[in-house]
Amino acid sequence: MLNRNRNVETFLGCESDYEESRIVLYGAPFDSTTSYRPGTRFASRTMRAESYGLETYSPYQDLDLEDAKVFDGGDLELCFGDTERALADIEACARDIVADGKLPFLIGGEHLVTLPAFRAVQAKYPDVAVIHFDAHTDLREEYLGNRLSHATVIRRIWELIGDGRIFQFGIRSGERAEWYWSAEGHTKIQKFSFAGLDETIAALKGRPIYLTIDLDVLDPSCFPGTGTPEAGGVRFTDLLSAALRTIRGCQIVGCDMVELSPPLDPSGTSTATALKLLREMLLALEKPYLK
Amino acid sequence: MLNRNRNVETFLGCESDYEESRIVLYGAPFDSTTSYRPGTRFASRTMRAESYGLETYSPYQDLDLEDAKVFDGGDLELCFGDTERALADIEACARDIVADGKLPFLIGGEHLVTLPAFRAVQAKYPDVAVIHFDAHTDLREEYLGNRLSHATVIRRIWELIGDGRIFQFGIRSGERAEWYWSAEGHTKIQKFSFAGLDETIAALKGRPIYLTIDLDVLDPSCFPGTGTPEAGGVRFTDLLSAALRTIRGCQIVGCDMVELSPPLDPSGTSTATALKLLREMLLALEKPYLK
Amino acid sequence: MLNRNRNVETFLGCESDYEESRIVLYGAPFDSTTSYRPGTRFASRTMRAESYGLETYSPYQDLDLEDAKVFDGGDLELCFGDTERALADIEACARDIVADGKLPFLIGGEHLVTLPAFRAVQAKYPDVAVIHFDAHTDLREEYLGNRLSHATVIRRIWELIGDGRIFQFGIRSGERAEWYWSAEGHTKIQKFSFAGLDETIAALKGRPIYLTIDLDVLDPSCFPGTGTPEAGGVRFTDLLSAALRTIRGCQIVGCDMVELSPPLDPSGTSTATALKLLREMLLALEKPYLK
Amino acid sequence: MLNRNRNVETFLGCESDYEESRIVLYGAPFDSTTSYRPGTRFASRTMRAESYGLETYSPYQDLDLEDAKVFDGGDLELCFGDTERALADIEACARDIVADGKLPFLIGGEHLVTLPAFRAVQAKYPDVAVIHFDAHTDLREEYLGNRLSHATVIRRIWELIGDGRIFQFGIRSGERAEWYWSAEGHTKIQKFSFAGLDETIAALKGRPIYLTIDLDVLDPSCFPGTGTPEAGGVRFTDLLSAALRTIRGCQIVGCDMVELSPPLDPSGTSTATALKLLREMLLALEKPYLK
Amino acid sequence: MLNRNRNVETFLGCESDYEESRIVLYGAPFDSTTSYRPGTRFASRTMRAESYGLETYSPYQDLDLEDAKVFDGGDLELCFGDTERALADIEACARDIVADGKLPFLIGGEHLVTLPAFRAVQAKYPDVAVIHFDAHTDLREEYLGNRLSHATVIRRIWELIGDGRIFQFGIRSGERAEWYWSAEGHTKIQKFSFAGLDETIAALKGRPIYLTIDLDVLDPSCFPGTGTPEAGGVRFTDLLSAALRTIRGCQIVGCDMVELSPPLDPSGTSTATALKLLREMLLALEKPYLK
Amino acid sequence: MLNRNRNVETFLGCESDYEESRIVLYGAPFDSTTSYRPGTRFASRTMRAESYGLETYSPYQDLDLEDAKVFDGGDLELCFGDTERALADIEACARDIVADGKLPFLIGGEHLVTLPAFRAVQAKYPDVAVIHFDAHTDLREEYLGNRLSHATVIRRIWELIGDGRIFQFGIRSGERAEWYWSAEGHTKIQKFSFAGLDETIAALKGRPIYLTIDLDVLDPSCFPGTGTPEAGGVRFTDLLSAALRTIRGCQIVGCDMVELSPPLDPSGTSTATALKLLREMLLALEKPYLK
Repeated sequence: MLNRNRNVETFLGCESDYEESRIVLYGAPFDSTTSYRPGTRFASRTMRAESYGLETYSPYQDLDLEDAKVFDGGDLELCFGDTERALADIEACARDIVADGKLPFLIGGEHLVTLPAFRAVQAKYPDVAVIHFDAHTDLREEYLGNRLSHATVIRRIWELIGDGRIFQFGIRSGERAEWYWSAEGHTKIQKFSFAGLDETIAALKGRPIYLTIDLDVLDPSCFPGTGTPEAGGVRFTDLLSAALRTIRGCQIVGCDMVELSPPLDPSGTSTATALKLLREMLLALEKPYLK
Repeated sequence: MLNRNRNVETFLGCESDYEESRIVLYGAPFDSTTSYRPGTRFASRTMRAESYGLETYSPYQDLDLEDAKVFDGGDLELCFGDTERALADIEACARDIVADGKLPFLIGGEHLVTLPAFRAVQAKYPDVAVIHFDAHTDLREEYLGNRLSHATVIRRIWELIGDGRIFQFGIRSGERAEWYWSAEGHTKIQKFSFAGLDETIAALKGRPIYLTIDLDVLDPSCFPGTGTPEAGGVRFTDLLSAALRTIRGCQIVGCDMVELSPPLDPSGTSTATALKLLREMLLALEKPYLK
Repeated sequence: MLNRNRNVETFLGCESDYEESRIVLYGAPFDSTTSYRPGTRFASRTMRAESYGLETYSPYQDLDLEDAKVFDGGDLELCFGDTERALADIEACARDIVADGKLPFLIGGEHLVTLPAFRAVQAKYPDVAVIHFDAHTDLREEYLGNRLSHATVIRRIWELIGDGRIFQFGIRSGERAEWYWSAEGHTKIQKFSFAGLDETIAALKGRPIYLTIDLDVLDPSCFPGTGTPEAGGVRFTDLLSAALRTIRGCQIVGCDMVELSPPLDPSGTSTATALKLLREMLLALEKPYLK
Repeated sequence: MLNRNRNVETFLGCESDYEESRIVLYGAPFDSTTSYRPGTRFASRTMRAESYGLETYSPYQDLDLEDAKVFDGGDLELCFGDTERALADIEACARDIVADGKLPFLIGGEHLVTLPAFRAVQAKYPDVAVIHFDAHTDLREEYLGNRLSHATVIRRIWELIGDGRIFQFGIRSGERAEWYWSAEGHTKIQKFSFAGLDETIAALKGRPIYLTIDLDVLDPSCFPGTGTPEAGGVRFTDLLSAALRTIRGCQIVGCDMVELSPPLDPSGTSTATALKLLREMLLALEKPYLK
Repeated sequence: MLNRNRNVETFLGCESDYEESRIVLYGAPFDSTTSYRPGTRFASRTMRAESYGLETYSPYQDLDLEDAKVFDGGDLELCFGDTERALADIEACARDIVADGKLPFLIGGEHLVTLPAFRAVQAKYPDVAVIHFDAHTDLREEYLGNRLSHATVIRRIWELIGDGRIFQFGIRSGERAEWYWSAEGHTKIQKFSFAGLDETIAALKGRPIYLTIDLDVLDPSCFPGTGTPEAGGVRFTDLLSAALRTIRGCQIVGCDMVELSPPLDPSGTSTATALKLLREMLLALEKPYLK
Repeated sequence: MLNRNRNVETFLGCESDYEESRIVLYGAPFDSTTSYRPGTRFASRTMRAESYGLETYSPYQDLDLEDAKVFDGGDLELCFGDTERALADIEACARDIVADGKLPFLIGGEHLVTLPAFRAVQAKYPDVAVIHFDAHTDLREEYLGNRLSHATVIRRIWELIGDGRIFQFGIRSGERAEWYWSAEGHTKIQKFSFAGLDETIAALKGRPIYLTIDLDVLDPSCFPGTGTPEAGGVRFTDLLSAALRTIRGCQIVGCDMVELSPPLDPSGTSTATALKLLREMLLALEKPYLK
């Protein structure tokens, strides 16, 4: 009756051991460059606590997370106020996971956490391309005088991989300079929707792909719990479909889900929605090994 | 100027006397088996308090609640912590209403309150079938060791009426075992939507129907105020249409609306939405007698 | 089991009939002149709904509200946006109560509602004096160009009864001009506390007294649910003692309790505190008739 | 480094001087006739504070607010509790703006603030017509005994301009009498949607138009932050499109945006949505002058 | 860098192994009989999550929790809606701890969870007495028809141990019948404060003591996060002192802390206060073993 | 009627020009090193917005802020995520103010903002001493690997000025190592209260003093709106008295008020309390020049 082991908490009951797992979840509770309304630091912790409201079975895919091999490494303990150091810690963790031949799946935090996770993946897969779902371009050269920011993260990634390898969907906000810079051929932006996603997937066939999902790509009606809500976004079923098609059609070598800010949505809907997307993505990633 | 009578509060100004009314509203503020986030116990009380924000006239049906004969019996005073006893009290109340030849319309509370209300109706209409709108299957054999739970309620009803008499719409969540059990022919599940509802209605023509609406069938964007929000649900206008078609096409002998949890939606939108659906359902039920 | 009467809701289970009651509670859900954070309009309704969390028995006075004769007339339906009209409606109601030989006990609403209630009492008791507990002087000549305002209410009452008949306790905020005007002898202000209350009570022996309690006299630590919290206030037990001593020592001919704003205190503590004070005041008023 | 000027706050960085501007924004933080849940008084202030989360560039129109000439005059200091006086102050302000040949763009507050703003515009453009987006008819003769109310505002405007000049879209709530009165030919109501808007715009070509947008025309899923949410509304992209088509097709001589109530939406989504609509409307109004 | 063990969460970093520990913390997230505002089920989980805001060192006692031997067994998974079963599970857990010669320290949940914890202790220490800090008597014979309720828990314990062995402090609320029943000699109530506590401690010297702390003994100003706040309570330093004196002066064989309801206090103050008291109590219990 | 100047917002109506002012208020909305619950970045902005609820007159000192010469420079626009840079910007601003012979009064933000403000003051007054009111020692050598943190700020200041020049009051939390390090003679800590403050003031007579107030020195009952609430703090009147005595008895050359986190206190009480303390401190600082 009494639990004589220490109290363990994981996403969605992902209870595999590290060694046997194929996917490693890890949380980066970091939002230091969030200029306006912080709170994404609470995302991973809140998602774990709310996991128990979710079923492990997916009627969308007829698969069950109980059969999946996923390890939850908990949250990194990151330094607040020293961004470079925090990013270095995230990168080191991602490198460990990659080195062990497992898929690193990062739960943010703000979008800047994608940068070190991507770096770790790129070190192993130099020709990696990026599929990016977001409301915002995130292509600024700097933001409030800072080159390392949630608003610059995709620009920093572009510096690592260059033109033509970043594919952005659902975008509906950004400074004029960002849009014009992208239009020079640096990245490919699909405004407002996932139109053209299937063509992109087909074109990237066989290439290693890093998939980064800023959850504010969702319409705020579905996902109010985020720092900079942008009306006019996609519906949950659109995002779910886009994510599953990407996973099925691409060789995913790293991925993340960022910008959930639980304190901004007291109904808990945003957290539940992120968890549901996470479940479906994990199942899609594991599908080749299940059943 | 001064009101010398005691202070009365009703849903939507439903001010008919008991004797003259055809429909009896009664609240069951019970959520004891809600494992995660309680709060549906506040639904009926909050709906009454917020009623005054709603018009009695429906531009959807060109009917006015002022012409309807609906009595609001207030909330039952239920025992917390002793589920069997609380259910017995609800059943006794529903039996009274049924015995008086009136339609019992229950406002939950968690979904388990449907069980005793259904039992009372079934006692009079042994061949009653069930139309069930919900995000969740509610077909578990037991939940946390408990056979009486919001997660088992439809399974318990199935035990009373057997195979082929339960029609579930909008379902998008459940344990694997529940889906597979249903697929053995015990209930009919329509995933995600109301597809096939009209055929079901046609097939049930002339049969007494109990209509139970778990409001979480709605997408959480429309209805965040519920304990276990499930992304990917139906829109309000879909639900409204489905409910009205069911009422118009079937012989409704009992109905309920459950799982509104007002504390989870500080905007009040969920409560207002439940009230609007209630108004439209009452008007549709009363339509034969109006104008 | 089923309640065949309409749904009734009262403060603290005050279930006496109007005729047999000695005290009449009535709510004035009005906050139209509240310039900053409205919400007192919800006070009376929220107090009724939360009443059931309170015991009817007082260990402070060893008396039980079940023995008291108090009628709750519910809330007046007041016109928003037309202050004079709303005040006229409150006054008419108070006059009815006074005319029937009962004690009018008003639940605000903002403090301005005291003015019409006082007028009704003064019509019967021309020599009535005022004991006023508050954080604010409320002595402005006008506020935002308005002579009828929560910030001017005691000044308006002074215009009705003149110098030396208003006794203010707990005051810790006001414009310089208000303090200086009072110091000219118009009212008697006791800063910060209830010092001198017993002397005031003794001096007023035999005189009819209107007692008006702005609950923000309490320290915001005890009572955060009010529109203009002022640090440095009195504790609950201080206020309770002051109110009971006033009731026991004076001939109360009217009283009120104002400025609870439930939406500002999600913990519900402020509402519960107001209810407890209300219970004790009712019991103290009824004590001569209870055994 | 130190700002030696006083602290200035504007909508969306609208930093033009009054003299050079073509559009003048002004806030009317008034909600005194709001009978149920006040809070629109905080709309303009909150919108200013949250402006910094929004980009000035529109990917919808490829225009940037930095190029526009818009002045923000801040909020009027209005008398609470004396409606006629508050309306007079709003009207005087709007008259000043109109007299200076600028477009007055009002940010409410409750819908009643439209009345004085409209009066000021009508004084200069006697043949002005009204395009009205709303969930509610707002056509009552009086509300709680008050002729000046958010629920009567369009009726009052009709009294000024007569039959056939008010075009209402998205309407889905109102008393039976309002709908029937409109159907007598007084106003033209399009239920639930913007169907027929383009025809209306075409018919009004060349006529001066006052555009009034009650933001509760939006579905509450997109816009929960409003006092009387009505399920079944339009989506943000529908409203955006309708507003832009109206501005492009008509000669707008005055406009407003009302009924945002920030305290009701802790996620901030409603405020951000209102700001985004405001940006797009300002850009559409300025488009002829921008390259 | 990467944590290859599963994610562990404990109170205050209590990281001892079960075997080496002298005190065992265990959570009972149960609030099924809470009639009014549920939420105590979230107490233990929230306390764990917020632990990291607290220092392990006490300047009150000059002791550090890092030196203590405390094991946190996490939360029991309890059946909601079947009170007897949930109580049985708690009792079984407490019996295990007692059997292993360790001190069971229970974190509620509602006050009813004390009953099974007490039973387990009483089985080993038949002459155990109870020291009880609370705002409420909890001496009802039944509550809403239920003998097992937070409002009856001390009465149920009295049935187990009889007259003269229950010492209640800080009490300020209860039904008249409870007070009068206690006054017949069944329990000893100290109204409002801890007066007489030292005498009680002295009298109980050498006797095994179960200490049960309902945190609503605190004034709601210090502790708003509880379901039934009662104004007029003790201050934190009073409670801290009373708890430490009890622990130092008595042979504590079991204890608990109940009725924290985190959702009711969005500031987090109540949770932080409960944690601080917990730290101090653990240190006082461990003091004999620390240097 | 219309304001043709841009919209200006200041603390408490502090409307003096920069040149004529003796005190300069400036906000540092920075909380990047706050590891747990961010939100102090909103303090200065929220205080300005809420200023209008406060009177300018003090009944405590019989002085009026309308007579004071205080300039509000608004908030610095600080880089999030690059702590060193943000601190440099604060220091530059403080240096400007000091260079102009004015008193810099900083509104935080987290406590780390004190460091650059202090540096600017120390550059002019090398023998400056520090009076520090706080719940926490803030004496860590580093925190989460970071030497620049809210938890290390007083240690960093000690490195600038050495032993015996820092006087800490109200302290009730800290790591063991911090307490022991202080006890070696580095700083002087008064636990729990302001005992000894008058002696400290007397001893420091004639010395320039920097006064830094972490508002969490207040008991959380008075001030719940702070990130790390610590039960057992001082009351508002204690803090007010301590601050006024310090200002009257010392030569204040710089001061600040930090750690208000408005989002954590939805009642607004904490913000109102900070504003009241600010008003009183400004009046005490200006007193020599008033009347």
